[in-house]
Amino acid sequence: MGPMFSYKITHRSSECGARIGEIETPHGVVNTPVFMPVGTQATVKGMSPDRLSDLGAEIVLSNTYHLYLRPGHEVIERLGGLHRFMGWDGPILTDSGGFQVYSLGELRKLSEEGVKFQSHLDGSTHVLTPEGAVSIQESLGADIIMCLDECTSYPSSYEDTKRSMELTLRWAERSKGAKGGNNDRQALFGIVQGGMYEDLRRESVAGTVDIGFPGYAVGGLSVGESKGLMYEMAEIALSILPEDKPRYLMGVGTPEDLVNLSGMGADMFDCVMPTRNARNGTLFTSKGKVIIKNEKYKDDGVPVDDDCTCYTCRNFSRAYLRHLFMAGEILSSILNTLHNLHFYFSVIRGIREAIVGDRFLSFKEDFFNKIEGDL
Amino acid sequence: MGPMFSYKITHRSSECGARIGEIETPHGVVNTPVFMPVGTQATVKGMSPDRLSDLGAEIVLSNTYHLYLRPGHEVIERLGGLHRFMGWDGPILTDSGGFQVYSLGELRKLSEEGVKFQSHLDGSTHVLTPEGAVSIQESLGADIIMCLDECTSYPSSYEDTKRSMELTLRWAERSKGAKGGNNDRQALFGIVQGGMYEDLRRESVAGTVDIGFPGYAVGGLSVGESKGLMYEMAEIALSILPEDKPRYLMGVGTPEDLVNLSGMGADMFDCVMPTRNARNGTLFTSKGKVIIKNEKYKDDGVPVDDDCTCYTCRNFSRAYLRHLFMAGEILSSILNTLHNLHFYFSVIRGIREAIVGDRFLSFKEDFFNKIEGDL
Repeated sequence: MGPMFSYKITHRSSECGARIGEIETPHGVVNTPVFMPVGTQATVKGMSPDRLSDLGAEIVLSNTYHLYLRPGHEVIERLGGLHRFMGWDGPILTDSGGFQVYSLGELRKLSEEGVKFQSHLDGSTHVLTPEGAVSIQESLGADIIMCLDECTSYPSSYEDTKRSMELTLRWAERSKGAKGGNNDRQALFGIVQGGMYEDLRRESVAGTVDIGFPGYAVGGLSVGESKGLMYEMAEIALSILPEDKPRYLMGVGTPEDLVNLSGMGADMFDCVMPTRNARNGTLFTSKGKVIIKNEKYKDDGVPVDDDCTCYTCRNFSRAYLRHLFMAGEILSSILNTLHNLHFYFSVIRGIREAIVGDRFLSFKEDFFNKIEGDL
Repeated sequence: MGPMFSYKITHRSSECGARIGEIETPHGVVNTPVFMPVGTQATVKGMSPDRLSDLGAEIVLSNTYHLYLRPGHEVIERLGGLHRFMGWDGPILTDSGGFQVYSLGELRKLSEEGVKFQSHLDGSTHVLTPEGAVSIQESLGADIIMCLDECTSYPSSYEDTKRSMELTLRWAERSKGAKGGNNDRQALFGIVQGGMYEDLRRESVAGTVDIGFPGYAVGGLSVGESKGLMYEMAEIALSILPEDKPRYLMGVGTPEDLVNLSGMGADMFDCVMPTRNARNGTLFTSKGKVIIKNEKYKDDGVPVDDDCTCYTCRNFSRAYLRHLFMAGEILSSILNTLHNLHFYFSVIRGIREAIVGDRFLSFKEDFFNKIEGDL
């Protein structure tokens, strides 16, 4: 086995809160800021592990909720753990399943003990507790695992948000207890909640840091609030979270979010956007989005993005990608996903290089100047 | 551009009618016997061209009917032809579209002139003639193109089959006339029909050879008849087709068909079976088929085929492949297709090596002895 879990900052921006770091895990080093592609059901949709590696993916996220229900964490454990199961020997992060219980599970019933829900697959009843979420994630064997939290919907009243944030704190304490405090082989991250209320965010950070974790996530963002409000809440948390621990913005975000929030000192991101949009035919480029099904691309012999060096752009025209999409071909999802992930990894690599070179602000200006449409 | 079209036999089996040959095309050499994966809509479903190359595909088949309807052959021609469009710079064969008109088109009306049909995509009316089929295939630019034929269904009366076979002969003559007789850049193959009647098959071969083509296909096989009858009809055609021209069995077949019919002197095969079965979760192995969704594979940590060296078998367990299939993941189709094509290419490579080594009969015996179930 490889080394234990650790995090170190290798460079601090002279211009802003951005920083460069290295997360060492038993399955290799992750350079931060990092974007983690989402492999919900033990596969990043449309991508084989060798492609992911070639694209420069350093760590993959997978979902406890999905794997617990199918094929079952015991199955994965018996087969040697999630890394071997999915053929990915790099670092893996699993979420706690909490967010998916709230967004996918049916007939949810929340209590102090945990959350009772019905499977979206077969209606069977399950209970997820903080201790259970840790135990499932121990079976899966990811390098970084997450505390079970409650994620309030948006908008949510102050009282509901406060009650939920406090429950999340008590669950964080139980999670840490269940884990036994040894973060060498698997690092358990705490999750900050508090909705859109500054004082609750601050209270959540203080409480979570007080319990003490090797890394901290900010949850409950990008749940329907405005971009401005999201950045405000992220900035509050990022500004008071410990300097010497990685900071992970869960479920964030767009390419512009990666740029803006790295500038505030965020280290880790995950989002389904590059992979999901790819399957829906929306491609990211340095100049903005390309909706590949548009009639105007029917005869368009140029690549999606002239500046792009990915396999898709080196070999195929917009016209071909449009044809594949219209024809419902599997290769459409493959080539589009490949391109979008390549774009995301290019953006995050650009961010890292700019921070290292102490030219993050001019990088950011260039990045936004190039965009003609929305990102 | 590369060399012109030619075919030469490099070795004849001392044991049977099998032979080894090379088809030279403007886009490279094809070693025969060869299996051609089917890329219906300008993509072999689930496979990117680089994967196909890595697997050892030497030539790909694509469908005139589909490409004529979507995106349109003019679009593909304007974009530089089918090779550039689909990013495959090896040899391509296109069929005439005839078989798809009969199997997919609606409200077909056959006349001496051609076949009128409605698109399965939008109900629009089209007429496909022998001259039109040649012209469309010239736009697409494949290395080997096919005459428009009529394929009788099974069973079919002697009179209907004879009438249809004679029409196919007249269409073959018109196709050759439309092509202008120059087979250097694109070789136009004739198609033998005649259903399940020996004398009609013989008459069809004689008539088609009389018109004269640089290669000959045997059509109308694997349309519902028994395996014995199919082999009988194939053997008749193969035994009297010219020695010095490639012989292509259209839409054939199973791995065992490749072995049996190569032994009778067939040079080219195509079939959707490896790719379609892959998407349905049926995997070919040297010991027989594996139905990956079966419950018994849930905890099965070994590869699909112990003897297989493909990417799928080197990296993933049956349990993982079952999980991907049950979860409806795109990677299921990718990994299964990759394995099945690898298996087909291994079989055809084994056939070639056995013919070259004059040990085809013992190869064939071993091949069938290994199989525990059906292939």
